[in-house]
Order: sequence, then structure tokens, then C-alpha cells
Amino acid sequence: LHAQSNVQIYGIVDVGVEYVNKAQVSSTGTATGSLAKVTSGNAAASRFGFRGREDLGDGLSAVFVLENGFSANNGTLANNGRLFGRQSYVGLAGKFGELDVGRETTPIFDFGALYDPMIPARFSALTLDAAFASRADNAVRYAGKFGGLTLSTLYSFGFDSTIVNGGQIPGAFQVGKETSVNVNYQLGNVLAGALYDRQNGTSIATEQNTDERMALGISADFNPVKLYAAYQRRNTRTAPITATTNLFWVGVSYNPIPAVTLDATAYSYDPAGPSNRTGMYSVLGSYALSKRTDIYTVLSVMRNQAKAVMALDGTVNPGDGQTGLQFGIRHRF
Amino acid sequence: LHAQSNVQIYGIVDVGVEYVNKAQVSSTGTATGSLAKVTSGNAAASRFGFRGREDLGDGLSAVFVLENGFSANNGTLANNGRLFGRQSYVGLAGKFGELDVGRETTPIFDFGALYDPMIPARFSALTLDAAFASRADNAVRYAGKFGGLTLSTLYSFGFDSTIVNGGQIPGAFQVGKETSVNVNYQLGNVLAGALYDRQNGTSIATEQNTDERMALGISADFNPVKLYAAYQRRNTRTAPITATTNLFWVGVSYNPIPAVTLDATAYSYDPAGPSNRTGMYSVLGSYALSKRTDIYTVLSVMRNQAKAVMALDGTVNPGDGQTGLQFGIRHRF
Amino acid sequence: LHAQSNVQIYGIVDVGVEYVNKAQVSSTGTATGSLAKVTSGNAAASRFGFRGREDLGDGLSAVFVLENGFSANNGTLANNGRLFGRQSYVGLAGKFGELDVGRETTPIFDFGALYDPMIPARFSALTLDAAFASRADNAVRYAGKFGGLTLSTLYSFGFDSTIVNGGQIPGAFQVGKETSVNVNYQLGNVLAGALYDRQNGTSIATEQNTDERMALGISADFNPVKLYAAYQRRNTRTAPITATTNLFWVGVSYNPIPAVTLDATAYSYDPAGPSNRTGMYSVLGSYALSKRTDIYTVLSVMRNQAKAVMALDGTVNPGDGQTGLQFGIRHRF
Repeated sequence: LHAQSNVQIYGIVDVGVEYVNKAQVSSTGTATGSLAKVTSGNAAASRFGFRGREDLGDGLSAVFVLENGFSANNGTLANNGRLFGRQSYVGLAGKFGELDVGRETTPIFDFGALYDPMIPARFSALTLDAAFASRADNAVRYAGKFGGLTLSTLYSFGFDSTIVNGGQIPGAFQVGKETSVNVNYQLGNVLAGALYDRQNGTSIATEQNTDERMALGISADFNPVKLYAAYQRRNTRTAPITATTNLFWVGVSYNPIPAVTLDATAYSYDPAGPSNRTGMYSVLGSYALSKRTDIYTVLSVMRNQAKAVMALDGTVNPGDGQTGLQFGIRHRF
Repeated sequence: LHAQSNVQIYGIVDVGVEYVNKAQVSSTGTATGSLAKVTSGNAAASRFGFRGREDLGDGLSAVFVLENGFSANNGTLANNGRLFGRQSYVGLAGKFGELDVGRETTPIFDFGALYDPMIPARFSALTLDAAFASRADNAVRYAGKFGGLTLSTLYSFGFDSTIVNGGQIPGAFQVGKETSVNVNYQLGNVLAGALYDRQNGTSIATEQNTDERMALGISADFNPVKLYAAYQRRNTRTAPITATTNLFWVGVSYNPIPAVTLDATAYSYDPAGPSNRTGMYSVLGSYALSKRTDIYTVLSVMRNQAKAVMALDGTVNPGDGQTGLQFGIRHRF
Repeated sequence: LHAQSNVQIYGIVDVGVEYVNKAQVSSTGTATGSLAKVTSGNAAASRFGFRGREDLGDGLSAVFVLENGFSANNGTLANNGRLFGRQSYVGLAGKFGELDVGRETTPIFDFGALYDPMIPARFSALTLDAAFASRADNAVRYAGKFGGLTLSTLYSFGFDSTIVNGGQIPGAFQVGKETSVNVNYQLGNVLAGALYDRQNGTSIATEQNTDERMALGISADFNPVKLYAAYQRRNTRTAPITATTNLFWVGVSYNPIPAVTLDATAYSYDPAGPSNRTGMYSVLGSYALSKRTDIYTVLSVMRNQAKAVMALDGTVNPGDGQTGLQFGIRHRF
């Protein structure tokens, strides 16, 4: 059937076994224990998708992506039950760049993917700020590349449709809006970039509240070693109070031989308030069995100050550290 | 892998930006406002599907369609959370026509598609009676073509499985049943047709209640102009009362050049009772970038009498009119 | 697009019409009635899937299966709303056998498929013990074949993720665990096998409770007739009480001509306690229109002793018998 050529099917199945310690046994009480479990998406989220690109002539193309996320350990839908929760858009691409509309990855996502070598692994900056894996519903996205400059911008009319009204409420123009831009410049072996993202509250009562992220990142490629560093300042404003959270990391990626990848990042996560700081240290080693299949291990250590409760998996008591270890297999199709 | 030839993947991704005015801000109170939002399926519902046809010899074929509907603006499942909510059936096709069993489009759907040029756009007869996009669960459907005559009939053992018991209750043979037939005859450039559809109530207490639709439609093709008109009488019987709703429309479709399509329909919707009438006026313009991709705009005006509350999107105050405008892109694969 | 060759799409659409008698009209009262309905998966569950196998060299392959189950009569997701509820795994295969991780069919499933000729029809051992269609979430599965010996083993860290915590609770190592093994040996035209499966309770309070299945099966192939027999003892332990349920069946499969298949099984199901026994007698006839499409009929009779309430479909009064009849079409792609 010739119509097959209009659509490509692709995906990743990534499943492994995970061990974490010091996880709370239940939501009541402070008892903790170790946990061995099967987990999906340790090195990269499990997914499948349909995508296509149609040549319209004059350098113009129509493009679409419908990308599902699922938990390969139990077959359930990820992304809050959405069918195409990772990406769902249609648009036009050409020399001007690409303009899409639908559910789309945010410039925060783009920034994280460029400057944290541990992303898209779960024990990465994603653990400290899930926005590095964020998508926005009801979004218009533009991305372009001009010489060394790459640019992505997004405006969402309501970034989460699973909230009542999808943040799209008549007469309330701020509710659920998201504005986001990521700009990067490549100069020789150095890439540097900046991020600005703002989300408004998702109800009329909270529409003036804002959640702002500002970040700077840099990477330098000394093949086969690549170095990374980034800083993000997040201002969560619930008038009249603004709480600031600082996140900083340095990372390294090393390819000693083509089949082996080693990634490591050290993070400092510091919300407002005393004894709130968390240090996290992650390393991933991958061995490629082919271009499409690899086996991997991830080790991560989380260190919380007395009031901090960041966790690799599950919930921890204030101040408890946690260690996580994963072994798995990732197959691309 | 040769098995690929047994199944075809197809779909539509249709997303755009919509503006409507005079929509209620919340379910309490009468305050209204304008709304700009991203919407899916403005010109045609977003979907993907698997379908196949196997030649069994002697002119007989096995056929199946599994068709999903989704909201491309946020990636969620449409059709009340069904995976294959648009169509899910298997059957046999031959000279006798086609006999299918599963979840299937109704003859009401067939009638609407033939006689309203605005369908499958959202601002069409679909806005005034969602049954023009209806499917029936648990259905047996027969469709055939004999010379100028086309015929579709459907019987459902329970038209909506998402209702408790799916309308299939032991010993209660009327619950949730649907009987439907659409007959059309082509004579020269004129197509004329009739529809009869009856749904029974979906519980034992209401199984004697009926919802009947009777309709007549006509279209005449004066290429590149095509004219349409239809009348539907709907009797909703909750014994001992029968409420009648009349729906009438006239439409036109115009293809000045192959790449451009202009569709327009004027509707009169008149439920029982005084000051209940609604007039609706819709026009769609489409420009094809290719056979598979077009950009479109839809403009629609809704005019309600004092007690009428029909809305293009959201909820309106009694008697309020509403204007809607959409711009979007539709890609077929 | 060459990437297509990395993934195969496959599936079954099976829909038919079913009649059962003596089903309770509602959950209150004892009134019963007959029921005619459309049903999916009478001869085999409706499904679609993506699967692939990548040659890694040295006899090693990477394999994955993502298999969805759905109700073709209404398009809804089966398997408790999971997207890939039938199978969702990735693994490695080679001379050593196959090692997979994810959501997978259990050795109970393997045993049933080998020794009940009525499986995968609905009116089979599946009616008496749904575990013959069971999958386990969070599972590691190994299967191998060595000469006449076939072996499948599974260990699940939490066999049902739709239960709170997925049976994977920190510090509670028994919660939700499943251990399972099926061994079979082929000697000439005789296949004989054994099954052991144990599930632990799915909460801390019940983790010491166990649900054990032990079974023996045999089949003998006298082409075109094949005979089957199996016995399963199930011990459901809620300390300090153990309840035992015995299940026994004999079956036959007959292929008089390639296009015709006749399967029949007689079952005795006997839970602990007096007047609890159920006899069930099923027969399936299938006529193949092609290698991929067949039409079938299934007839089943259920006979309950005074306190038994086993049902083919719906709910029956204690001691009531039930007769079921199905006609349908099954198409593979």
C-alpha cells in the first residue's frame, strides 16, 4: 500500500530494574525501606510515534508528529493519560524555520537537552525540575536556525488542558498562558545559550501569579570529551511573595570508543529558605549492542540538607539522602 | 517485513487558532467574554487509523477499520476516551454490498456528509445536532450501491457502551437500541435522499422513550458550483410528551480553481416552544498547498432568539449571538 | 521511509453476535432474562501491536513487543485501560533462549494455550479462571527451548500496577510478587507439562497471603485429531485458612479439512465447599475464508450445582445453568 510512505513509525522501548533506598513505606509515618522495582524510561522515555514530512515545493514542507509516551513496565499511558502526550502537532517548515501548532515541547525542554548530558535519563535535571521534560498544550511554536544561531519560541493559550478549562477561559487572557524562548549560539566548539519561560496561574483567581525560569548554559566539545554547565533561576510569584529557587550543574560526556558513552552531572538545587539545599550526583554508562540497541547502568546519589525532601524515586524524610541504581536495555525502532 | 502490506496507516492532523466572543466566563453567573484558543479538528476531526482489505476470491473481501479520534491541540483521546472511537469494525464486502459489525458510523452520519457542504467542519450542522457525527457501538451495518441507489442501514444492540450496561440489558430488548436507514438516489446531476433513525432510551425505566430523526436532503451539481438543501424533523418522546425540533439548511460549495474550496451553509434550528429559534451562518475557505495539505479559515455567526442558547463554543446566555473565526492547517497522511 | 522495516504492525479484529440466557437483569433482585449483544474477542481477543527483531550478530537479537488489547464492539481500551495491556516488553534473544523485561504473559498463560484447545476463545478455561489470560506488570521473563524441552519462567516485582503502589512497596519485599514456571516436554506425538505459579497479596497487610496454582497437562497429536487433558489445583491462602479449587478438563481438536477447525472441551470446576461444582461444555467451529480470515460459531453450556454461580456472561442466580451461542468473524492482519 503506497500510502505507507506518508508516515513513519518510530519509538523507543526502555525498561530496566531499579534499586533505591530510604524511600517512605507509606504516606503516613516516617518508616523507610529499600525498593527494587522494574522501571520504564530510565535512559530515555519509552515512546512510539507517527511522523511525516511532505514536500510542498519551493523549499516548503508540511510536517506532523504524533508521539505517544507510555510506561513500558506496565503498558499504561504516560503524560496524564494523553494518547499523544509527548508531541501532537502539525506545521510548516522551510528556509524561515518551522512553525507548528498543537501540543509541543517547550524551550525549557530544548535548553535541558542541550546543556545537561544526563538528559533524557530520569536521574538527571528532570528529577530536580520536571519542566525540563515539559510540553505545552494549545501551543504555537517557532524554531529556526540561522548560521550559528538556533532559536525556539513558544506561546501557549493554555499549557495544560487536563486542568479545568485548559487555562483557556473567556475574558481572562492571562489564565494558563506560557511564553518561552531559548536562544543558542555556536562559536567553534563552544555552544552557549539562554532561556526565558513564564507560566501564568491556571485559574482566574491565580492568573496574575507567575512561574518564571531564566537560565544560562554552555557546552564545549573537546572530542571525545564534552563539558557542560548551566544555571537556572526560578521565580515562583504568588503575590505579594516571590520564592526563588537556584539550580546549577556541571556535566561531562565521554565517548572513549563509539560503543561506549559515559555521562555524568553534579547538581546543586537550592530553593528559598535555610537548610533547603540538595546536591545530586548522577552518572550513566551505556554500551551499544548496535546503533539501535544499548544496555546501560545509571547510578545517582541525592544529598538533602535538613529540611530538603528531594527524592530519586518515591518520597523521602526531610534530610534523608537516597541512592539509586538502574540496569536496563533501550531499543530504538 | 512483508506483513506491512496487510494494513494501511492513515490519518488527519487538523489544528488551528479560534476566536469566539460572548462565551460565559464560568458556569455561575452571566458574565461573558471573548476567547482565543487553539482547537483541533476545525475543518475535519484529527484522527489516525489502521485499515485493510483482503481479497478472498469470487469478488469477496474481508475488510476492517480501526480509527482513533484525538484532540491534536493537547494529544488527548476524543470520543469519550475510546481508543478507536471513530470506527472499529470488521466485515465482508462483495457485489452484495458490505456487511460490518462493531462500532460504526450511523446513517445519520452518512446523510450529513452528503447534504451539508460544511460537514465535517465543526461550525456546521454538527454544532446544531451532534448526531451528524454519531457512531453506534455494538452495531451491525449494511451498505450497498445498486446503480444510482445508495443505501446504508444500521442496527445497534446498544449504541453507547459508556453508559452502564451499554444499553445491553438481559430481558429488556428495547434498551439502548438504534435502528437507522439512509437511502439516496442519483439522477443526472441531482442526488436526493431520505433518513430515518430511532434510538431507544438507555435504561429499563426509559426504554420506551424514543429519539427519532426523519430527514430529506437534495444536492445538485452544476460544476464548479454545487447546491445543497436538507430538512430534518426530530421527535424526542418522553411519554406522554413528544418534543419536536426542526432543522433546515441550504448550502453551496464552489471550486473556482482546483486549489480553492469555498463552502457555505445557512441553518435554521427550531426546537419546540416560543422564542427558541436559532439561525446559524457558516462559511469555510480552503487553499490546498498540495493534495494532502491545506490551510483554511472558517467564519460562523450564531443568532439566538430570546430563549435560545445554541453556541459555537462554550456556553452563551439566552438570546446572545456569537461569532466564531478559525484559521488552521489540515494535513492528511 | 526505510525505518518502516524496523517495526511490524499486526493484529486481530474479532467481532460477533452473542446470545446468552438466564443472566440477571440487574445487581439487585434475582430476575433474569435472555440477552443478545455484540461482543469482541469471542474466538480470539481483538488486538493490534508493534513488534520488531534486530539482528545484533553472533546469534543475538534485540526484540520488542508492544501489544494493545481493545474491545472491537465499541472501540474502548481493554486490560483495565492500559494502552499496551497485552504485552509491553523489550529483551534479548539468542541460543540461550529469550530474556525480556516489562509487562508480559505469564507461564499460566503459556500452560493454558498449550493444553486447552478452546483457548483463546472466551468460552474456554478463561471463563473459569481468568489467570489463563494473565499478564504480569514489572516482570522479568525467561523462556527457552532445549531439544524437546520448553520452559518459561517469570518473576514480577509487582504484578498489577493498577493497584496502589503497583505492589512495589519500599521495605515490603513480598507485596505483589509473582513467581511462575511452566515446563513442557515433547516425546513423539505427546506433549506433557507442569505449571507452578504463586502470587503474594498486594498490600502490606496481605503480603503473606498467597494464591498458588499447580497444574499438569498433556496433549497427544493423532493428526487430524488432537487430544488434551489438564488438571489444576489452586490454593488461595488467607492465613490461617487455605481454600482449594480443583479444575479439570478434557478436550479435542479436529481438522477434517484445512479450512475447518472443530475444538471442544469439557470442564469440571470445583471450589471448596458443598454444592459448589460447575460443569462447562464448549465447542467451537471455524471455517477459514483465507489464511487470515475465518467465520466461527461457539456454543457453550454451563451447569451449576445449587450454590455455584459461574456464568458465561453477566451474572447468574445460584444454581442456574446458562447457555451461550456466538457467531462471528475474525480477521488477522
